[in-house]
Amino acid sequence: MTAPFQIHLHQTHHPIGDFESIFTYIKDNFGANRSVAPLAGPHIFPELFLTGYPLLDLCLQRPFIERYLNFIEQLNNWSQQEFQPLKSGAPLGLFLGGLQYTFDAQNYPAKIENAIFLLVPGMPLKHVYSKMLLPNYDIFDEKKYFSPGSSVATITFAEKNIALMICEDMWPSTLHTCNPVHDLQQIMLREKRPFDFVINLSASPYHVGKLGKRLERAKEISHTLAAPFFYCNRVGGEDEILFDGGSFAVNGEKVLGLASQFTTDLLSLELPGPGQYHPPGEKTVNTWESLFEPRIKTAPATMARLREFSPSDCEEIVKGLCFGLQEYAVKTGHRKFLVAISGGLDSSLVAVLAKLSLAPGQVLESIFMPSQFTSSLSYTLASQLARGLEIKMHTLPIKFLHSTVRNAYNDNCGEELNGLADENVQSRLRGLLLYAKSNRGGFLVLNTSNKSELAVGYSTIYGDSVGALALLGDLYKTEVFQLARYINHKYGPMIPEEIISRPPTAELRKDQKDSDSLPPYERLDPILEGILSYRLSLSDLSKMGLPQEEIERTYRLYLNSEYKRKQFSPIIKLKPKSFGFGYRVPICKKMI
Amino acid sequence: MTAPFQIHLHQTHHPIGDFESIFTYIKDNFGANRSVAPLAGPHIFPELFLTGYPLLDLCLQRPFIERYLNFIEQLNNWSQQEFQPLKSGAPLGLFLGGLQYTFDAQNYPAKIENAIFLLVPGMPLKHVYSKMLLPNYDIFDEKKYFSPGSSVATITFAEKNIALMICEDMWPSTLHTCNPVHDLQQIMLREKRPFDFVINLSASPYHVGKLGKRLERAKEISHTLAAPFFYCNRVGGEDEILFDGGSFAVNGEKVLGLASQFTTDLLSLELPGPGQYHPPGEKTVNTWESLFEPRIKTAPATMARLREFSPSDCEEIVKGLCFGLQEYAVKTGHRKFLVAISGGLDSSLVAVLAKLSLAPGQVLESIFMPSQFTSSLSYTLASQLARGLEIKMHTLPIKFLHSTVRNAYNDNCGEELNGLADENVQSRLRGLLLYAKSNRGGFLVLNTSNKSELAVGYSTIYGDSVGALALLGDLYKTEVFQLARYINHKYGPMIPEEIISRPPTAELRKDQKDSDSLPPYERLDPILEGILSYRLSLSDLSKMGLPQEEIERTYRLYLNSEYKRKQFSPIIKLKPKSFGFGYRVPICKKMI
Repeated sequence: MTAPFQIHLHQTHHPIGDFESIFTYIKDNFGANRSVAPLAGPHIFPELFLTGYPLLDLCLQRPFIERYLNFIEQLNNWSQQEFQPLKSGAPLGLFLGGLQYTFDAQNYPAKIENAIFLLVPGMPLKHVYSKMLLPNYDIFDEKKYFSPGSSVATITFAEKNIALMICEDMWPSTLHTCNPVHDLQQIMLREKRPFDFVINLSASPYHVGKLGKRLERAKEISHTLAAPFFYCNRVGGEDEILFDGGSFAVNGEKVLGLASQFTTDLLSLELPGPGQYHPPGEKTVNTWESLFEPRIKTAPATMARLREFSPSDCEEIVKGLCFGLQEYAVKTGHRKFLVAISGGLDSSLVAVLAKLSLAPGQVLESIFMPSQFTSSLSYTLASQLARGLEIKMHTLPIKFLHSTVRNAYNDNCGEELNGLADENVQSRLRGLLLYAKSNRGGFLVLNTSNKSELAVGYSTIYGDSVGALALLGDLYKTEVFQLARYINHKYGPMIPEEIISRPPTAELRKDQKDSDSLPPYERLDPILEGILSYRLSLSDLSKMGLPQEEIERTYRLYLNSEYKRKQFSPIIKLKPKSFGFGYRVPICKKMI
Repeated sequence: MTAPFQIHLHQTHHPIGDFESIFTYIKDNFGANRSVAPLAGPHIFPELFLTGYPLLDLCLQRPFIERYLNFIEQLNNWSQQEFQPLKSGAPLGLFLGGLQYTFDAQNYPAKIENAIFLLVPGMPLKHVYSKMLLPNYDIFDEKKYFSPGSSVATITFAEKNIALMICEDMWPSTLHTCNPVHDLQQIMLREKRPFDFVINLSASPYHVGKLGKRLERAKEISHTLAAPFFYCNRVGGEDEILFDGGSFAVNGEKVLGLASQFTTDLLSLELPGPGQYHPPGEKTVNTWESLFEPRIKTAPATMARLREFSPSDCEEIVKGLCFGLQEYAVKTGHRKFLVAISGGLDSSLVAVLAKLSLAPGQVLESIFMPSQFTSSLSYTLASQLARGLEIKMHTLPIKFLHSTVRNAYNDNCGEELNGLADENVQSRLRGLLLYAKSNRGGFLVLNTSNKSELAVGYSTIYGDSVGALALLGDLYKTEVFQLARYINHKYGPMIPEEIISRPPTAELRKDQKDSDSLPPYERLDPILEGILSYRLSLSDLSKMGLPQEEIERTYRLYLNSEYKRKQFSPIIKLKPKSFGFGYRVPICKKMI
C-alpha cells in the first residue's frame, strides 16, 4: 500500500515587500538544516506570496522591483545549492504566487503578470501560470498593473494532473470576458483525462460572511471539474483591507479541511483516492453577482431594514477588527494605542476592541475631554468604562481652552464665535489634545467615527474625525449597537449598560441629541445602505416605506459631505461596499 | 461655387451631472426659437459631454442613471419636436459624447460604453461609436466602469467620410492591446476611399505642456490617415483634475485653428478642400510612452536637476491654478476664500494666486497667526503682502493659546509637552483658528503645502496640512520659487522680494530652518522627482551625483509619510505624476 498523498496549504502572513521574512519562511520550512525532513507532496502558497498584496504603484517602482529581483535570484541560488530532494524519493514542490516581470529595452516593466511559480529541489523557479481574471472593481485595480494570462493551465506534478487557478479565476462574471472554470472543464472533457485536483492561490479580501461564499463556489467548481479543490488564502491586514485566511479543501459537497481565520495556519490534507471523486454534477452555478453584489431580490417591504448580524458574524467582526488594528500597529511600528472616550457608545466600543486586541507589552490609554456641555453622566460612564477595562483615563477639560479660544477669536476678529463654528472648535480642541498626547508618547490614535456619521458628514473635519485608523467606519450606528450588545454578552459586561441605552449625543451644545439633526438611526441606516450598497434611487427607497423627506435629506447630506470622506483615515473594511479605497465619488458635481 | 464646409468644435464647460445646463446649452444653440439659424455642418462636442467626466462610481448609482436617462428622453423628444432642419437644406448634426447603457434583467447596468451619439433634426440620438481604448493608468479608472467598443467606426455625414475617435483612441500604447489609428488606416487602404476628416471627442486631463503633445500626436494621425484632424476637448475643473480645452484642428503639419485654454470656446473651421489634404506620410510615430511617461533618455549627469519651467509654462500654470480654484469654489458653493499667511513663500504665493483668480463679488481674506517663535520680519512681510494685495489680514496670535494648552496638558497629563509634540500644537492651533474663521464666515480654506513637503511629510497632519484644496501640492519648492519670480516679473511685485529671498522656515521653534531637517531643496527636489516620476532606484539616483546619505534619508522620509498623504486634500494636478487620485501606494509595507 502506498503512503497517502498529502497536499499542504501554507496560509502565510508577511508584510508587503518583506522579502527577508518571506525567504526565511521558505528556508525554515524547506532548508537542508531542518531537523526533520520537509513534508512530501505539493505545498500551496497564497497568491503573490513572494511579494505581498496589494502592491499598487509599488510594483512599478524600481526600488521595489530591484529588491524583488534580487530576492528571486537569491531564492533560485538557494534552490540550486540548498534545496534538497527528499531522501525517500517522494515528490516535493512549492507552488508559489509571485510576479512575472517582462522588461522593455529601457528596463522599465513592459508586462507584469500575477503568476504561479513551481519550485522543486535543485531547480530555479518555473513560471507555470498567469492569472486570467484580473479584478478591477471596487478596491481592486489589477488591470492597472497586471496583464492577464492568455489561457488556463494544468500541470503534471508527482504524476497528478493539477488544474491551476489564482483567486478571481474562480469568479467568472459579466465583469470578465472569459471563464477559466469553463475552459478547464473543456480541457477535461476534450482530453478525457480527469483532474486529480484543483488548486487556487488566493489573496481574497475579507468581508463578513465571505468565507461561506468562497466555500459555496468552491464546491460548485469541484462538481464542475469533478475533482477536489484546494484553496490557499493569504493572511494580513493591509491598511483597510483584511485577508482572513480560512484556507480550505472541498471534494464535491464535502469539506476536507478548513484553516483558521485571521491567523497563519498550515493545513496538510490527504488527497481523496480516485474512487472518491465526486462525479461531474449539474449543480446550479452561482455567479459572482449572485454571491457578492448587493441586489434587490426580496420584496421591497423586507428591504427597509438592515440585515441583522448573527452571533457568528459578530464574532468574525470582533476578530477581524482586532486583527486589522494589530496589523496596522505592528506594520507602522506602534505598540501604544490612544482613544478619546466620551462616555458615548462609539468611543467605548473602540476602546473595548483595542483592549481585546492587545498583545503582551502593548499599552492602551484613553483621554476624556469634557466641555461645558459634557454631562456628569458622561464622566461617570467614561470613568466606569476605563476602570472596567483597566486602562488609564487622562482627563483633559477643554472648557477653559474653549473660552480662551473664543475670547481670542472675538477680540481679534471683531465678531462672535458662535453656532456651528463654536461647536467645531470644541471638537478640534479635542483633536489637538489627542494628538499632543499621541505625539508626546508615540501613541497610535484610533478614530471613533461610524459609517452612518461618515455617510452624512455628521462629524467635524480635523476634530472628532481624526485618527490613524477607523475601526467602526464600515459599521452603521445600528450595527455598532449590535456589536456592543454581542460583546457584552460574549465577553462579559465590558461596556457599561447605560452607555448602550442612553440617546446618542455629540454634546457640543446644550441638550444636543443626534436625533435633532438626523433621522432616527433605524431609518437612516437602511436609507444609507440602499444608496451606497444597493445603489437605489430615491423613489426605490420611498417605495420601501421610508419617509420621502428623510430620504431626500439623507441623500443631500450624503452628497454634500464627500469632501470630509476624502480626507478621512483608512477604514477597516468589513462589507462588500465600504467607504475607502474602493469608493470613488467626485466632490465636485451637480447636487440634485 | 458651393459654400465652404465648416466644422464646429464646442469646447463646453458644465458640471458633472448638470443635465439641466447641458440641455440648455443645446436648446440655446440649436432650438427653434433662436433669432438666427444654427450654423450648418457637423458640431463636435467633448467626450461625455452629456454627463460630464470623470463620473467614477456615479455612473453606477441609480439616482444618477435615472436622471441621465430622463434627460436623454427629454433630449430625444426635443429633437423630434423642436430641432428643425436648416431652411437652406444645408446639413446639420451634433456629435455628442455620452454614455450608452445596457441593463440586465434586474435593471442594473450590465454594460456601460463611452460613446459618440449623432443627433440630427427630428431624430433621436443615434449611437455611432464606442471608445476602444479605455485608459486605466494613473488617475484613469475607465476599465472599472466602461466596456470597450469592439471596432473602429466611420460615418458618412453630409456626404463626408468621417473617422471617429474618442480621446485615448489617439494614444495607442503598450498599455493597450489594439490600435484604432492603425485599424482606421487599414480601412482607408482597404476601401480605397479617403477620409474627409477625423474627429476626436476628448476629455483630456491637463498637465503642463500637454497641449503641445496633443498637437504633435494629432499631426501624426493626420499624416497617417491623410486627412484633417479635429479635436474637441472638455473644459472644467473636477476636484484635482483640470480639463484645459485647447481644442484644435490640424491638417498635416498645419494648425488650422486653436481654441483658448481653461475657458469655453467655439471654433468654427473650414474643411480644407480635397486637394489640400496632406498625402500619407512616413512620419515617425510617437508612442504614448515617448510623449508622456517620464523616461530616462538623457545622460544621467543631466538628470540631477529638475527641468526649469519656461515663462509660457509658468503662465499656463498660473491660469490653470486660478481656473482650478474657481472651479472648486463655484461647484462647492463658495465665494469667500481664506489663506493662513505666515510671511513665508508658500502661503504668499497661494494668496497671490487666489487674488489673481478672484471674480467680481468674491472675497479673499488672510489670517496671520504669530507664535512666540514668529519673527518680526514675518509680521512685516505678511502685512506688506496683504497690503499689496489689498486683502484683509486678521491677526490672531497663538502665543497665549499655546501656553494655555501647554499648561492644561502639563497639569492634567503629568508630563511636559515639548519637542515635536509642542511644535505640532502650534501648527494645529493655527488649523483650528483658520477653520473657526472658515466655519463662522463660510470661507473656503486654501491649503498651502508644496509637493516637496508632501513627499517627505514635512508638515503637521491636522495642522498646516489642512484645507479644502491644495494649489501648490504638485509643485516642488524650487518650482514654487520659479513661479513666484515669474509672477512678480509678469504681474508686478505682488510678493515682497524678501519673502522670496529669506531662508524657508516653519518657525515652530527658535531659529528653525527647513534646512535643519531636509536636504537643500535644489537636491531634495530632483531626488523626489527621480523617485516619484522617473521611478528610479536609489543607486540610479546615486549615479546622478546626488549624495547617497541624502537619497537614503529622503527615501525613508517619503516611505514613512504615506499616512499623511492619505488624509490630504485634493491637489490641483499639474504634472503627469502627482500625489492624489492617481497615486496609489499602501501605507503598510516593509520600509526599505
